[in-house]
Amino acid sequence: MADTLSALRSLMASHSPPLDALVVPSEDYHQSEYVSARDKRREFVSGFTGSAGLALVTKKEALLWTDGRYFLQAAQELSDQWKLMRIGEDPAVDIWMADNLPKDASIGVDPWCISIDTAQRWERAFAAKQQKLVQTTKNLVDEVWINRPPAEVNAVMVHPLEFAGRSVADKLKFLREKLVVEKARGIIFTVLDEVAWLYNIRGSDVAYCPVVHAFAIVTSNSAFFYVDKQKVSAEVKTHLEVNGIEIRDYTAVSSDVALLAVDELDAVSTVRGTSTELTEEASKTLSETGVRVNGSSQADGCNDLIWADPGSCCYALYSKLNSDKVHLQQSPVALAKALKNQVELEGLRKAHIRDGAAVVQYLVWLDEKMKDNYGASGYFVEGHEVNKEKHLIFPSVVSSCCITSLEFLNLMLCRKSLKLTEVTASDKLEGFRASKENFRGLSFPTISSVGPNAAIIHYCPQAETCAELDPDKIYLFDSGAQYLDGTTDITRTVHFGKPSTHEKACYTAVLKGHIALGNATFPNGTNGHALDILARVPLWKDGLDYRHGTGHGIGSYLNVHEGPHLISFRPQARNVPLQASMTVTDEPGYYEDGKFGIRLENVLIVKEADTKFNFGDKGYLSFEHITWAPYQKKLIDPSLLAPAEIDWLDSYHSKCRDMLAPYLSEAEKEWLKKATEPISV
Amino acid sequence: MADTLSALRSLMASHSPPLDALVVPSEDYHQSEYVSARDKRREFVSGFTGSAGLALVTKKEALLWTDGRYFLQAAQELSDQWKLMRIGEDPAVDIWMADNLPKDASIGVDPWCISIDTAQRWERAFAAKQQKLVQTTKNLVDEVWINRPPAEVNAVMVHPLEFAGRSVADKLKFLREKLVVEKARGIIFTVLDEVAWLYNIRGSDVAYCPVVHAFAIVTSNSAFFYVDKQKVSAEVKTHLEVNGIEIRDYTAVSSDVALLAVDELDAVSTVRGTSTELTEEASKTLSETGVRVNGSSQADGCNDLIWADPGSCCYALYSKLNSDKVHLQQSPVALAKALKNQVELEGLRKAHIRDGAAVVQYLVWLDEKMKDNYGASGYFVEGHEVNKEKHLIFPSVVSSCCITSLEFLNLMLCRKSLKLTEVTASDKLEGFRASKENFRGLSFPTISSVGPNAAIIHYCPQAETCAELDPDKIYLFDSGAQYLDGTTDITRTVHFGKPSTHEKACYTAVLKGHIALGNATFPNGTNGHALDILARVPLWKDGLDYRHGTGHGIGSYLNVHEGPHLISFRPQARNVPLQASMTVTDEPGYYEDGKFGIRLENVLIVKEADTKFNFGDKGYLSFEHITWAPYQKKLIDPSLLAPAEIDWLDSYHSKCRDMLAPYLSEAEKEWLKKATEPISV
Repeated sequence: MADTLSALRSLMASHSPPLDALVVPSEDYHQSEYVSARDKRREFVSGFTGSAGLALVTKKEALLWTDGRYFLQAAQELSDQWKLMRIGEDPAVDIWMADNLPKDASIGVDPWCISIDTAQRWERAFAAKQQKLVQTTKNLVDEVWINRPPAEVNAVMVHPLEFAGRSVADKLKFLREKLVVEKARGIIFTVLDEVAWLYNIRGSDVAYCPVVHAFAIVTSNSAFFYVDKQKVSAEVKTHLEVNGIEIRDYTAVSSDVALLAVDELDAVSTVRGTSTELTEEASKTLSETGVRVNGSSQADGCNDLIWADPGSCCYALYSKLNSDKVHLQQSPVALAKALKNQVELEGLRKAHIRDGAAVVQYLVWLDEKMKDNYGASGYFVEGHEVNKEKHLIFPSVVSSCCITSLEFLNLMLCRKSLKLTEVTASDKLEGFRASKENFRGLSFPTISSVGPNAAIIHYCPQAETCAELDPDKIYLFDSGAQYLDGTTDITRTVHFGKPSTHEKACYTAVLKGHIALGNATFPNGTNGHALDILARVPLWKDGLDYRHGTGHGIGSYLNVHEGPHLISFRPQARNVPLQASMTVTDEPGYYEDGKFGIRLENVLIVKEADTKFNFGDKGYLSFEHITWAPYQKKLIDPSLLAPAEIDWLDSYHSKCRDMLAPYLSEAEKEWLKKATEPISV
Repeated sequence: MADTLSALRSLMASHSPPLDALVVPSEDYHQSEYVSARDKRREFVSGFTGSAGLALVTKKEALLWTDGRYFLQAAQELSDQWKLMRIGEDPAVDIWMADNLPKDASIGVDPWCISIDTAQRWERAFAAKQQKLVQTTKNLVDEVWINRPPAEVNAVMVHPLEFAGRSVADKLKFLREKLVVEKARGIIFTVLDEVAWLYNIRGSDVAYCPVVHAFAIVTSNSAFFYVDKQKVSAEVKTHLEVNGIEIRDYTAVSSDVALLAVDELDAVSTVRGTSTELTEEASKTLSETGVRVNGSSQADGCNDLIWADPGSCCYALYSKLNSDKVHLQQSPVALAKALKNQVELEGLRKAHIRDGAAVVQYLVWLDEKMKDNYGASGYFVEGHEVNKEKHLIFPSVVSSCCITSLEFLNLMLCRKSLKLTEVTASDKLEGFRASKENFRGLSFPTISSVGPNAAIIHYCPQAETCAELDPDKIYLFDSGAQYLDGTTDITRTVHFGKPSTHEKACYTAVLKGHIALGNATFPNGTNGHALDILARVPLWKDGLDYRHGTGHGIGSYLNVHEGPHLISFRPQARNVPLQASMTVTDEPGYYEDGKFGIRLENVLIVKEADTKFNFGDKGYLSFEHITWAPYQKKLIDPSLLAPAEIDWLDSYHSKCRDMLAPYLSEAEKEWLKKATEPISV
């Protein structure tokens, strides 16, 4: 790492102009949250492996900004060459740079890895001291990165209508109507899941995200798909061409945006889609704004804007446009993708049932192993603290007296295989999921965490260093999968021994918040910023809290984190109100550094609520839980629950039994029956 | 009203430049919420009597903007010459003007009646069509207002330290330290309660608000008080001069601000206060920013800004400043005044006990009258619907058989006096309050409202037109008083007959919200925007809501509505987090137009919470209820309450008994005992 910093600093010095600082964001050219191995530049530079963060290398310092989820992890992973900057506590990166870098400083960044919004905000912050944001022509990190992983060449796949629920033709029609309404003649898509959604394609270029490294441009008449052509099969080619989509090389996007700026891109297109019929709304807008509906909308010079999403489109592409003619607004696909269609909703419900069955199978298996291998009292019984060493030597049969020396030898030999670690355990969970229909892989690295590791909010266990399961410690697992019919994400926290009174009180407070949010009813127009507090109030009562948001959207066989909505204290959560047919997670938590962590997470679908009244004619919304797995009753202190909370739990548990039964063995069903028996106060 | 509009339009036409529109805000020169009779220009022009609203007169139209509290009332009060614009539903006034007034339009406003923020926001909105905000040299409404009430000449009074709890010298010291920190050499105060707080003076220029029509300017060396000198007694003169405060004529503020702009105001001062000793913080800031601590801070040219609060300072005074040298930031007195000192807190607690006793006495009296005069089943008993006519003719003695013709005649004669109206009832409430120690008047016009009138959120009954009390209808009263030791504000909703199941369900939902907010614990830094939802969630569950905020600060023998904090869905509620020692009301409601209204309101003090843990070392806050009066159990459906809610109610009721006993007669104590018996489920 020291060498990397020196090498970078010498490139910074020889850059024209010489750089006082170099920003290394986490994001790839598509502003992705999860990036492929070769795009993990920030991780390579800093050693910090979390999904979110920003590195800044100055002549003398190296700083890493990250958010509350990662404070603990970053502190552990960063070498002493690095200073951890805590988002929300320390000055924001732009403020820090403006304050701490010299007047007239040159601050370099790869313009492909930074959004328009961020670049412009920084430029405003830099103005007071005449500091400059310099777009480096090459990525300096790539220059010093020996052994950088090669580019992936993974096949693009068609996402069939039976799962997508909406045709590409229909999506393009919707999009072109939006263009008319916004007086734009073209739109640039850089976000990978937006491209995948729009063209009904999937891929495997980024671990856990079924996306393809690609850009798209759609104009009133043409549509383009920028991708490594090696990845495109004949089937995909046909699928795209039928929809009037021209396949262009990934690297051509840069020059094509320049052509788009001067309205010469359409000429490049060799395939032609059918012309877009306008809806009533679009026609109305056109006639209201005086634009003729018949004839080319470009011809009259009114629809001459290029639409780019300032929050995601990279500064590199924006710089090729005429800034007077850019329509900076959130991509219309962001919301359209979030509003799941009926096919997607049905798929998500089904995928979550199979996924819940896998989770229950895992719990049954874990319960058995924890008892057998570690002498734990198990999922149901509150046992005493366990003598682990003893149990590791004499597993399961320890209570039996008739043990022969051969048996003993065998046990000694298999001791290693009896060891259950965070990784070997979660591999088993993956196995249960993999056995289910439509399984395509995990949706993010499983957080399988024992005791203190559970306090690392986005902990990612490594096979060689991870902890062993422990019947005396809380075990938190946050995991999900990609199924062709939906993406899942669930967290449960369990204890196989004797949880402390404090752990139970904390678990119950988290559960109360989880229930309060999941059961909320609210008028249309309410955003996730307003709702966030509902999950915290029961924790606040005891002076507890958690340093992360409470919910995120989730894709339909797409990214596990999906916008544009959010349930969070972060201001972004105000931007988009929750709307019927959105998905969102409900995942409050509580974490004690060095001790334990608790999180409970279900996926919810926002639905129209069946309220008795409809004050203000706004229409009211509520949630449908689609995640099915029991909450561990042993960790619940029922005396802290209100009767309505107990009723909800009992009803949810009873539904769990019904939903999951078709996927479980008789023994598993028996286990689940016990796990979901009504709470007795 | 028609004549007024014509007269205004002809003045608009002859104005130089001719005006396309004239804005008539509700506010006076001090941006007050409640204004004196002669300042009710918007009411005079439009006929709408609510406290908040804005009138716009164009060549052809007349429009009135007001908020959800007043939709119903405005619709009733506005003539058909006026169009009601609903804030939150219709376009905002600046957007409407920009969209609907012609290009290059001149829009007039009295610059004394509009804040800097509003004026600048409008100017930005007008820029696209080259529309202009024109500052009229005279107030055009005053010109056409024949019989405008004369200016009040009410004595200024010293607010003694035993109630104020903090000396003027200490407040000026605090303020001058703030000036140093913000690099300002002077600050302008236009808000009446800020002037009153800063100089420890009170008055009676505005009904319900114990303030004086006055401005203040404080510089590093001088302090000025702009007031009609006739109002200033020798005692007040001494009080001010001792504190180095120069008394200047009210109208001199305009020319004095011009002097302040060119740093020539100090020369005007004839009294001299002692120079301000700087605190450690201020000295530190000075040395950090390179300002010398010794010697005049003005001499080195660094502290050359003039501080004006953009939200309250009028555009007229701002226009006399050099805009490059204005420090636009919320007045430091806004927050300082909101953070009550120990003397003020103790005074508020005591005032609220006396006030609660008056409310209970009123309820006892009302209960008796409703039974006697209207044959109601009363506060405690759920009776059947009453034959009102019968009871009005034969009140109270109707059940007795031995009634002579003379008695009957007497009864007929006193029938009129038996009639209980919204106004005569609330006069009785005022009487109970007036009998209490330190009473100085009401803190706002009592909302005494029967049945459908209770749905008019800020209903103000008039003696001649108001409704009669009705044992078959809900009665809502929202009232408060000014006591020397504190200002009060309480709302209770009662029924003296048989409330419907629906009314009970709604009352209980409002009560649940009231309890949820009042019992919340939250970390430091939480604002009233985040908390607002807690009071709504129980209502939302049934598809109910209310069109007003949930809480406002309250003064210490000052205005009943006090910033800078707020509990509301309005964005302003995000500006200032709740802090320990602030006061705030907790007043959710529910209103069915044409039918009934429910609101429950207590005053709370924000206090440090005694939480078990202190996650994130933020410190946690909760509320202390200081309002004492029972909730009517007859209106509560206990089956809708959680055990914790019932516990809270029982505990609050038990405290009510203890707190109010010293002020009640034996009969009243008996009544209160019954009213506060534990809830039986």
